[in-house]
Amino acid sequence: MKIGLLGHGTIGAGVDRIIEEISCMEVKSVMSLEVDDSFRDRHVEDIDTIVNDPEIDTVVEVMGGVEPAFTFTSKALKAGKNLVTANKALVAAHYKDLIALSEEYGGAFRATASAGGSIPWLVNLERAKRVDQILNLSGIMNGTTNFILSKMKDEGADFDDVLKEAQCLGFAEANPAADIDGPDIRRKLNISANVAYDVLIAEDDIPTFGIRNVTAKDIENVSSLGLTLKLLGVSGKTDAGVYAYVEPTLLPGSDVIAHIPANYNLIRYEGKYAGVQSYMGEGAGRYPTAYNVVEDLFDILAGTKHFYSTEARETVPDNSIPVHRYYVRTGAESAALSGITEEQREGFVLTKPVSVQEMHGVIKDILTSDPAAFMAGIPE
Amino acid sequence: MKIGLLGHGTIGAGVDRIIEEISCMEVKSVMSLEVDDSFRDRHVEDIDTIVNDPEIDTVVEVMGGVEPAFTFTSKALKAGKNLVTANKALVAAHYKDLIALSEEYGGAFRATASAGGSIPWLVNLERAKRVDQILNLSGIMNGTTNFILSKMKDEGADFDDVLKEAQCLGFAEANPAADIDGPDIRRKLNISANVAYDVLIAEDDIPTFGIRNVTAKDIENVSSLGLTLKLLGVSGKTDAGVYAYVEPTLLPGSDVIAHIPANYNLIRYEGKYAGVQSYMGEGAGRYPTAYNVVEDLFDILAGTKHFYSTEARETVPDNSIPVHRYYVRTGAESAALSGITEEQREGFVLTKPVSVQEMHGVIKDILTSDPAAFMAGIPE
Repeated sequence: MKIGLLGHGTIGAGVDRIIEEISCMEVKSVMSLEVDDSFRDRHVEDIDTIVNDPEIDTVVEVMGGVEPAFTFTSKALKAGKNLVTANKALVAAHYKDLIALSEEYGGAFRATASAGGSIPWLVNLERAKRVDQILNLSGIMNGTTNFILSKMKDEGADFDDVLKEAQCLGFAEANPAADIDGPDIRRKLNISANVAYDVLIAEDDIPTFGIRNVTAKDIENVSSLGLTLKLLGVSGKTDAGVYAYVEPTLLPGSDVIAHIPANYNLIRYEGKYAGVQSYMGEGAGRYPTAYNVVEDLFDILAGTKHFYSTEARETVPDNSIPVHRYYVRTGAESAALSGITEEQREGFVLTKPVSVQEMHGVIKDILTSDPAAFMAGIPE
Repeated sequence: MKIGLLGHGTIGAGVDRIIEEISCMEVKSVMSLEVDDSFRDRHVEDIDTIVNDPEIDTVVEVMGGVEPAFTFTSKALKAGKNLVTANKALVAAHYKDLIALSEEYGGAFRATASAGGSIPWLVNLERAKRVDQILNLSGIMNGTTNFILSKMKDEGADFDDVLKEAQCLGFAEANPAADIDGPDIRRKLNISANVAYDVLIAEDDIPTFGIRNVTAKDIENVSSLGLTLKLLGVSGKTDAGVYAYVEPTLLPGSDVIAHIPANYNLIRYEGKYAGVQSYMGEGAGRYPTAYNVVEDLFDILAGTKHFYSTEARETVPDNSIPVHRYYVRTGAESAALSGITEEQREGFVLTKPVSVQEMHGVIKDILTSDPAAFMAGIPE
């Protein structure tokens, strides 16, 4: 297997290094904005040099971002190359297009590292579906926000201080919005739900509430309820339809997910036969993520062609299906919130069971008058 | 795929039921000591009827026990049939023989459900090895003992009372020795280590200390140290060799494994590239275990032939490699124990770091004069 590698940053350098030790694979060409001595002799300037190289059968894309990644990977698939990517932005935005190109031109398409980093999550979800029916899935899918929430709980620290520490340690980006506001999780949830239920969900159709507004006082309130706060992606499929949402969630200590430390991820599904199956590992990092990229390459060598289902149907999630109570902290007056309040506590309210759709609507409305408001779901 | 099913108890009935819904598989014949209407028309009395049936290409063995399971499965493999088994006693005792028969006569041999029940543990370990190097593995591999230890901790209850409750609930056998003394875990650890490090370990070479002697007072002592007691199987591979042992282990609350509830299993490995990967699910039960049997059948249909490595070498574990401190509670005088004691507490001692080999020798000696003594490892 001769590989054209698009991107030689954190993940790309990891892929390059692991493949050095594997006799049946070779990184022949590398495209990268910055060039160092480790691959100067293999560096090419133009995607067409890779696409038109008949010796290269497989393209690995680890540049990140939707463009130019989509243009480049489309060209590769149209040239009949196999494609492996770890790029969740690309896969969430163009899942359908990439499957279609793989189908039409015959190259394989795999993206296990795009959700869960090192965790063989998508590949096991795909495997489980051969026998089982996936009833629901959920998890901690972002290490940065889990690091922040763990630190806030353990040290009673405030959000801004912990975020600054995470940025200093390299766990959080200078612009942390993709992590703390939830879009990173939304993409991984989107891809997971697509695979689990054979659907095509549009990113924007997944209601998403992040942890930008969480305060040390919220953490204290949550602890007084005997619960732990985690930011989860959640989805499921019932006879009524598919649901999917991202929200801060309050969990009892009896739930293992309340104990997942720092920058680990835990993702789980419930199968009709297998019951609850949980996968835990590092959700990011050079070698952990590169590891799953190379596993995809082995799967292609072993003859696995398509990345998951070619029969997925476009589906709009119905978040009137999941119903549970919420913790809400706001200084604003809200008639809608009063209408669903079950209990007023000192500084926060607990709602009656309401649908995710309704509550995400109510909080959106509250944020217009109180931009610092915070909410978290309380599963049954 | 036409299947001959050996055993129609808890697991066998689950396999039969799942396959009813799968169009590409059929359970043609069933051997079972007890016959019910669900398979009376497919029941056969003699293994040779199955082995000599040219229509049957695959034998599923879920009888349990080493004999007659080994005789029956050997006959099946010698007839060129594929073999799938969930029987850990069989696989731990005859791993090498079954691989050799599979190799010689061309039938596939898979046994994913033999370690971890519903968890796709062995198949992921096998997959990981394509890219990664397995440095170590460990876990809660037995739901019965985890149920007992969880209950003792949560309720301050005594061992005998909780064991009786577990037996009443059907979680523990009338003769609980295989669970509480550790041989069940030893078998799963043995199979896991064989797969992870390409070795063949003899069951008896794995030092094993169970929880038969644990008391409510031990649980109280352990809590006073801020730790949680779990019964673990542990193994690893270093430049010095392979080690493997089963022992009660004291864990800090920061370790997720301290929070695994009731009858769940969590098994994990550390890979050179992927880091620590943990798998959690039900370790027993009709459908969870049957699920993994049917997954193995799918893998055979997909062309996977051998169950793991045919290059495994006979290896004696070297338990002088792992070194850590121990909690020891005994009323006996022991010069060997005094020699390694670091700290005498009220009713128990904490040792200096000693090798697993040394400590398992010391406790064996202590048990001859104090049959109620208890010990637990304290990993660094």
